[in-house]
Amino acid sequence: MSLSMFEITVPGFVRSFQAMNTWFDKAQAHADDRNFDSSNYLGLRLAPDMLPLTKQVQIATDMAKGCVARLAGHDVPKWDDSEATLAQLRARVIKLVDYVQSVPAELIDGSEAREIVLPMRSGEQRMSGQAYVLGFVLPNVYFHATTTYALLRHAGVEVGKRDFLG
Amino acid sequence: MSLSMFEITVPGFVRSFQAMNTWFDKAQAHADDRNFDSSNYLGLRLAPDMLPLTKQVQIATDMAKGCVARLAGHDVPKWDDSEATLAQLRARVIKLVDYVQSVPAELIDGSEAREIVLPMRSGEQRMSGQAYVLGFVLPNVYFHATTTYALLRHAGVEVGKRDFLG
Repeated sequence: MSLSMFEITVPGFVRSFQAMNTWFDKAQAHADDRNFDSSNYLGLRLAPDMLPLTKQVQIATDMAKGCVARLAGHDVPKWDDSEATLAQLRARVIKLVDYVQSVPAELIDGSEAREIVLPMRSGEQRMSGQAYVLGFVLPNVYFHATTTYALLRHAGVEVGKRDFLG
Repeated sequence: MSLSMFEITVPGFVRSFQAMNTWFDKAQAHADDRNFDSSNYLGLRLAPDMLPLTKQVQIATDMAKGCVARLAGHDVPKWDDSEATLAQLRARVIKLVDYVQSVPAELIDGSEAREIVLPMRSGEQRMSGQAYVLGFVLPNVYFHATTTYALLRHAGVEVGKRDFLG
């Protein structure tokens, strides 16, 4: 193992998203124990002007999907944002793990200086592959994953730090 | 710029912790507007069995401090965990930024395979510098920084995603 664009992205995505599905398993068990519909989690927000849990998971997965596709020079796969149940969010996370594992490491490695073009609200932004991963993708993936975790933790689901780290 | 142990750690720490102090500035302004003591933030928790804001900041800074010291082969500086005001947390964050910027990049680069010995509750853990950063330090720094942000956001402080990214 040596430092490479693949090593700083895919293994961490796989670990983090596989961990996320263990939180969802605990959330489902928590809902079953208390006889409430686990889709109730999907609308939870930490503040009324923050995005709900569903969106946190969609953005976290989109960040990782976009990263791997762009570094490899592929088109970013488009996925519908139609999840309405915890099982569907779980399936999206599995789809993400499958996707990032499907792209050969050789296509990702060497992308340090590759120009990445990001569509943003303010217009296109261009940056190197390395700046994209370190300054944009990793902070965003961890931000939205931690917010998902915090929402479940705040809702009483028995997840702990070890479940976060995976 | 090319991928290196310095590049995947210090610039991100500086950006994240400088961002954190802008959240604290907004938190102070929010408290001043509403005439409450900003040290009230320090005990906030997202759940009664989660660590309070002070501890989130102490752990986030400890993770970054320990990372830079261990990769460089230095002893980890010991700091008292005695912060009791928002201004003192702010000062700790500045101290962290100063510390990580004080260690020459050349001491950190090349530490991919350096053996890192971590004192854990379960006993010593040994891992390579690269595994330590990617599998332990980055997830932990982002976890505790995001939780700090979430606590302030939940408390009504007007921070937004851009403030997180810095």
